[in-house]
Amino acid sequence: MLSVLVTGTNRGLGRGLVGELLNAPTVGIVIATVRNVEVAKELMRIDSPKLHVITCEVTDENSVAAAVKKASQIVGGKGLDILINNACIKHRVPLNGDVTKAMAMEQLEVNTVGPLLMATRFHGLLKRAAELNGSAQIINISSASGSLEQALRVDWGPPSLYSISKAALNMLTRKLALEWKADKIRATAFTPGWVRTDERSANADQSVEEASAKLIKMILSLTEDNNGEFYGPTGNKIPW
Amino acid sequence: MLSVLVTGTNRGLGRGLVGELLNAPTVGIVIATVRNVEVAKELMRIDSPKLHVITCEVTDENSVAAAVKKASQIVGGKGLDILINNACIKHRVPLNGDVTKAMAMEQLEVNTVGPLLMATRFHGLLKRAAELNGSAQIINISSASGSLEQALRVDWGPPSLYSISKAALNMLTRKLALEWKADKIRATAFTPGWVRTDERSANADQSVEEASAKLIKMILSLTEDNNGEFYGPTGNKIPW
Repeated sequence: MLSVLVTGTNRGLGRGLVGELLNAPTVGIVIATVRNVEVAKELMRIDSPKLHVITCEVTDENSVAAAVKKASQIVGGKGLDILINNACIKHRVPLNGDVTKAMAMEQLEVNTVGPLLMATRFHGLLKRAAELNGSAQIINISSASGSLEQALRVDWGPPSLYSISKAALNMLTRKLALEWKADKIRATAFTPGWVRTDERSANADQSVEEASAKLIKMILSLTEDNNGEFYGPTGNKIPW
Repeated sequence: MLSVLVTGTNRGLGRGLVGELLNAPTVGIVIATVRNVEVAKELMRIDSPKLHVITCEVTDENSVAAAVKKASQIVGGKGLDILINNACIKHRVPLNGDVTKAMAMEQLEVNTVGPLLMATRFHGLLKRAAELNGSAQIINISSASGSLEQALRVDWGPPSLYSISKAALNMLTRKLALEWKADKIRATAFTPGWVRTDERSANADQSVEEASAKLIKMILSLTEDNNGEFYGPTGNKIPW
């Protein structure tokens, strides 16, 4: 039975991924992290022996260290099979005088450095699972707007700061795949496509449930061939 | 006569670029920025009416604002034709427990957010030059280790944090090219290749002078076709 940790699960895609994971017969432990357990009421109401909701602010080294400790107790020596870096923010400002340093730094802090901290701090638990089961897997939830090849498209909405943070996340994915290959820890990036997560995406073609189901199906069937790669919602390779 | 501003000119490639620009007959004004004018003794000794050495800490919004003001006085209403974002740091730590949040943030702050602040704050001067001369140009000094396609090569040295910051810088280049096309401000990324800038690169195939000469020749001959693209030291396109 696999153990999976997902960040940013209070709402949106993260919440959907938790739902799918709880339904997956091969998954035994789902660790859902939220910034604040007290506001994660919907998640706390789920009655499943598989589910463990814990606090984790992915940009806070102490909070991540505390989450590692809790996760370690939950998995009880078996390590963590899959880490899903889902927590993410999106600043919607054009590249003009309105971009402050704080805004740019925060965008990179949450979307790029957060996953970096999660991966590096959970390295021990991932390595343990890889030793026991042959491999462990990091999933970085990225975006097609992080594709450099497609970045000159004028018809795509997502703002530039967000694209910059996702291109950086994609490079993190590649470098984790390279550096941790010997530990049998893989890293793969996914873009869920356009999903109806809030009022801005009301016209999107996928519900949270549909997108989550597709993603979890793919995530649970990854092999070494997918290490370091970047996939779309139908398993299509996204150009860098 | 063109006006050009280069960041990080106290040593290495930045220092070399300034030397080449001073020799270029089509360049009338060279604004060389350093973090601390007092330690830039070699630069200060250069006797050229073209050269203006000013202070600029690219990660400090106030310092960048002050540099914009000084540059504005130097160019006297003519705008800035070329901004070269060269200032850069490189953290050499593998993706393990030694990576601190501060280290990851600093790598992104200097190599990605610095160029973003420089570009957005100098937007007015660049736009003015584009209005007068038909176009203005931003150059981001990137690295082949910022190429996602080539990121799984095991034979390449540059550390992962650096690669992440350069992939992010490449996306900034793409997004500036897209967002500022209407203003006729172009953005292009270059990797200088391997250059003998310090003792670590003693075996590199190019001297600072050779690399600078090649880069400045290319920079001074860019057209709209090169907007948003990424080139190597021989003008070769680098894959994203």
